Amino acid sequence: MSVEQLDAEKAARYAARMARKKAIIDKKIASADQDTGLLLVLTGNGKGKSSSAFGMVARALGHGLNVGVVQFIKGRTDTGEEAFLSKQAGVEWHVMGDGFTWETQNLAQDKAKAEAAWELAKKMLQSDQYDLVVLDELTYCIQYGFLDAQVVRSDLLSRPEMQHVVVTGRGAQPILIEIADTVTEMSAEKHAYEAGIRAQKGVEW
Amino acid sequence: MSVEQLDAEKAARYAARMARKKAIIDKKIASADQDTGLLLVLTGNGKGKSSSAFGMVARALGHGLNVGVVQFIKGRTDTGEEAFLSKQAGVEWHVMGDGFTWETQNLAQDKAKAEAAWELAKKMLQSDQYDLVVLDELTYCIQYGFLDAQVVRSDLLSRPEMQHVVVTGRGAQPILIEIADTVTEMSAEKHAYEAGIRAQKGVEW
Repeated sequence: MSVEQLDAEKAARYAARMARKKAIIDKKIASADQDTGLLLVLTGNGKGKSSSAFGMVARALGHGLNVGVVQFIKGRTDTGEEAFLSKQAGVEWHVMGDGFTWETQNLAQDKAKAEAAWELAKKMLQSDQYDLVVLDELTYCIQYGFLDAQVVRSDLLSRPEMQHVVVTGRGAQPILIEIADTVTEMSAEKHAYEAGIRAQKGVEW
Repeated sequence: MSVEQLDAEKAARYAARMARKKAIIDKKIASADQDTGLLLVLTGNGKGKSSSAFGMVARALGHGLNVGVVQFIKGRTDTGEEAFLSKQAGVEWHVMGDGFTWETQNLAQDKAKAEAAWELAKKMLQSDQYDLVVLDELTYCIQYGFLDAQVVRSDLLSRPEMQHVVVTGRGAQPILIEIADTVTEMSAEKHAYEAGIRAQKGVEW
């Protein structure tokens, strides 16, 4: 066969493969036709949980939706996400933590902070004024017993039907995974931190 | 023991546990003291790859950094991320695809599109005017042979020292993983799509 014939054959095979793929995907798309508020859980040890939640905030703002964000653990207020997103129209942003719990070492204080944060989250979950609610680093509050998992579950399930919620944090509890629509486990195959590189602004904060 | 004694003991155990944790983490932080431009690869079948990249765009903007985005596959121009982020000062945004390859079924056309997209990406990778460059869905262009992996590798490695790059897409090639600083594998533990729920605006696009 000539080079031209080989190229033509390659292009034909490509077209056929993609046509088969299209048939499968079109069928899948046709069968996924419902709209509903999603509960997304982003968990695992890898980088990307909170940043993915903030990417969804950007997406939501692009569609003119209203967003509420509660950061349960984070205490610092110099993050890029807060500086940029919290000032946007349609965004309500609360940094409720004191930093990670190993910084405070005070159980009663950490629990009180988490409970105050949940009160704010609960108000959002009870209002149809928020199209997307981000509960950043919530899982740690359950892990350390600051919040009752059953209460969290119940408040999440009682939210408006079309409201999307994103929960982030390592070690998401089975009780959260069970009621979630979409769960992503993010595994760190490699992390710059392990090579002695500190958290970079614009990437990690 | 009285309830008060039990509570006091619990709080003391908590404080001790967190103090041990703090010592370990402080040591890790002290040893991670380098600054450098990172190459991040976000891969896997789970939801969160592109949204995490866009969350980093938001973070970068919060620190006053300049951002370049090239979307290699995506052809639609009604996404929330583009509507919101592309109009921000400091952002250059290019939607270069024709949609997923199974829609076009035309090898020569898809390859030409990918090459044009890489030309734009390369200009960003050669300029210190971009602090963060997002190459969204790049992996598919290598997978289908539209782009030469060695050329991609070489252009990525030649970029300015402090420039961060985020590559997204399923099935990231070993040649990318090898040169990356941070690699997250995102696995779909659950996906709303499988339950018949279509892509929701503000979440998936």
